[in-house]
Amino acid sequence: MDMSAIGATAHGGCNRQALTDLDIEGRRLLSQWGRAAGCSVRVDAIGNLFIRRTGRDDTLPVVLAGSHLDTQPTGGRYDGVYGVLAGLEVIEALNDQELITEHPLEVAVWCNEEGCRFPFAMMGSAVWASRLPLAEAHALKDRNGISVLAELARAGIETRVPVHRQAVKAALEVHIEQGPVLEQRAKTIGVVTGVQHMCRYEALIEGQEVHAGPTPMHQRRDPVRALAGILPLLYQAATRHGPDARLTIGIIETQPGSANTVVGRLRFTIDLRHPDAEQYRSLCMEAERIVADGLAAESLTGRAHRVWEAPGVRFDPSCVGAIRTAVAALGYPAIELVSGAGHDSCNTSYVAPTAMIFVPCAGGLSHNEAESASPADLEAGANVLLQAMVALARRD
Amino acid sequence: MDMSAIGATAHGGCNRQALTDLDIEGRRLLSQWGRAAGCSVRVDAIGNLFIRRTGRDDTLPVVLAGSHLDTQPTGGRYDGVYGVLAGLEVIEALNDQELITEHPLEVAVWCNEEGCRFPFAMMGSAVWASRLPLAEAHALKDRNGISVLAELARAGIETRVPVHRQAVKAALEVHIEQGPVLEQRAKTIGVVTGVQHMCRYEALIEGQEVHAGPTPMHQRRDPVRALAGILPLLYQAATRHGPDARLTIGIIETQPGSANTVVGRLRFTIDLRHPDAEQYRSLCMEAERIVADGLAAESLTGRAHRVWEAPGVRFDPSCVGAIRTAVAALGYPAIELVSGAGHDSCNTSYVAPTAMIFVPCAGGLSHNEAESASPADLEAGANVLLQAMVALARRD
Repeated sequence: MDMSAIGATAHGGCNRQALTDLDIEGRRLLSQWGRAAGCSVRVDAIGNLFIRRTGRDDTLPVVLAGSHLDTQPTGGRYDGVYGVLAGLEVIEALNDQELITEHPLEVAVWCNEEGCRFPFAMMGSAVWASRLPLAEAHALKDRNGISVLAELARAGIETRVPVHRQAVKAALEVHIEQGPVLEQRAKTIGVVTGVQHMCRYEALIEGQEVHAGPTPMHQRRDPVRALAGILPLLYQAATRHGPDARLTIGIIETQPGSANTVVGRLRFTIDLRHPDAEQYRSLCMEAERIVADGLAAESLTGRAHRVWEAPGVRFDPSCVGAIRTAVAALGYPAIELVSGAGHDSCNTSYVAPTAMIFVPCAGGLSHNEAESASPADLEAGANVLLQAMVALARRD
Repeated sequence: MDMSAIGATAHGGCNRQALTDLDIEGRRLLSQWGRAAGCSVRVDAIGNLFIRRTGRDDTLPVVLAGSHLDTQPTGGRYDGVYGVLAGLEVIEALNDQELITEHPLEVAVWCNEEGCRFPFAMMGSAVWASRLPLAEAHALKDRNGISVLAELARAGIETRVPVHRQAVKAALEVHIEQGPVLEQRAKTIGVVTGVQHMCRYEALIEGQEVHAGPTPMHQRRDPVRALAGILPLLYQAATRHGPDARLTIGIIETQPGSANTVVGRLRFTIDLRHPDAEQYRSLCMEAERIVADGLAAESLTGRAHRVWEAPGVRFDPSCVGAIRTAVAALGYPAIELVSGAGHDSCNTSYVAPTAMIFVPCAGGLSHNEAESASPADLEAGANVLLQAMVALARRD
């Protein structure tokens, strides 16, 4: 509750976008809690924050529980935050039981997971996993032209040292499902075996600003008329690729944005996802062709650029096994599923054995101020995390 | 050129929106020029500015040349400004010829014609013509919540006196066509016999913000999918209503505006115009039905509200006749046409004999920084205005 007060919105959600004052305040509060739990705290040059609980043999690779504290502009109180706080709960539970694990434990807060302020989702974990050069991440700018580097410096974070990746035995992440499947099937736990393929396009259509009255329709270069041709075909393409396909047009912007002027410049985003690699590639190709054909049909210039892509991943069998074992021991109703959303675990899976745990969220709502989850489910997810981490932190 | 320097944009246009510092600066400069031409200057309580040249019998109704100085955010250097400066040119030409007209002459600068900052196009002339209550106009607010009243007060304009409408014998307005017809037909002058019917809708579609990944497409409440159904039908409806129909969707806004979140709230505008009253009404009804059906098809809530309407007008035969006679005397190639754009002359026509003169603009471009017109055509328009005003300012 203390964390959700930082950036609290009018409708019960959170607006704590990456590296804003509120995000920095949230990270500071978490660091205090970590130190109070007897842990050491460090921050790397891209703003990832690690809270470390010493192991019996502190030279062994860590068992890590990571997620993020940043939110969407009108985000909820659970997405990301739950995974971080559950990790801290694990540490506090072990403190209460005076139990020292063989391997050290760490809670990771990955910087800028949402990618809504700085346009690169899962940024911090991507740099940590050597999937994004530090300098490129530092150079990312928000819509006001403020860079990641400038915001890290403002938060007093040392940015000139290379990002050192600690040896990791296992990286787990517990998260709300952000979809309706667990709730609909009345399951408490989702054992996540992988993440679907996903990418984002930025599309631009250039027209000509003319007055809404005098210019006959057939003489206009109207980007909205091109959009009218493109939108239905995009949704039809998604339908053709089956129930697992996801197509989201989250942003449409018109310039100059005057009701009595034909649009001069139209920008929109296309987010595409599919768990099957072949279907995913086919959907991307179709979307690109639909935009190109829509521009050609109206004789307009423009483009659809793929600005971000996260290939699908399969999680590590031993980590998935540890979660499966914990769920069985605790007796929670569970299913196995593939994540529809990207997570920092996608990045960690490239360099460390990784798996995820999902708990239900009300109505499948996420990226929404009304995001919510039941205390019992949240506790169940944390219990699974605790048991799996303890098992993985044993000497093999 | 001095006027176009105020609010000059990078691409040769103007951004001098109503009652901004730049608009106030432009009005001040024009007032200086008016006083230098021996005229008196007065401003009414809605910010309309009148530059008056005494007539031989100064108690007679005025012959007025009016237009506006405010522009679109990325507007041009001719829309409105040309009509104001041409009116001042008429006065200066009469000064040079030492010719005193029987009736007094006035140049009117109508406040907030564009309606892009404060959402009511042709505001000042509407108040002057008793078509909009002064208090309602004063209460209009821009997107930052700043009211017309506050901006008038800031400009030092006395707002507490009622708007007094002077007696008007004739109100003329010379303007760029803002469409391609005169240029395509190689005509110098358009004798404008009326203005088409027009209105503006604000449409809103309410959906549900959910994460772009996990929620299956068929479980979403996605306003963009409703838009995908609505847009093509709107364009088809416009086509069905013939070549004179105009449909413009100038603004589309998505909230929260995040590429990986399904849109929660989508807003767009629909500008509809037609010279034929029956066709116009039919187009409006179809557009309302298309939006309602599109919402119903996706089980979404929302609405399309008509927020503004300007019924079509026929101009005064004696004023049109004076322009026709002037054009014939000067020998310019001319046609008669109906304006596709709304003008302050629509409002004045309800309370005073009114007509308009059009000159060509390059490529029919307007509401565009590239707006342009040839010096020869601009001079021709001013000459027609001069002759018509002189003729109308004679005692009948």
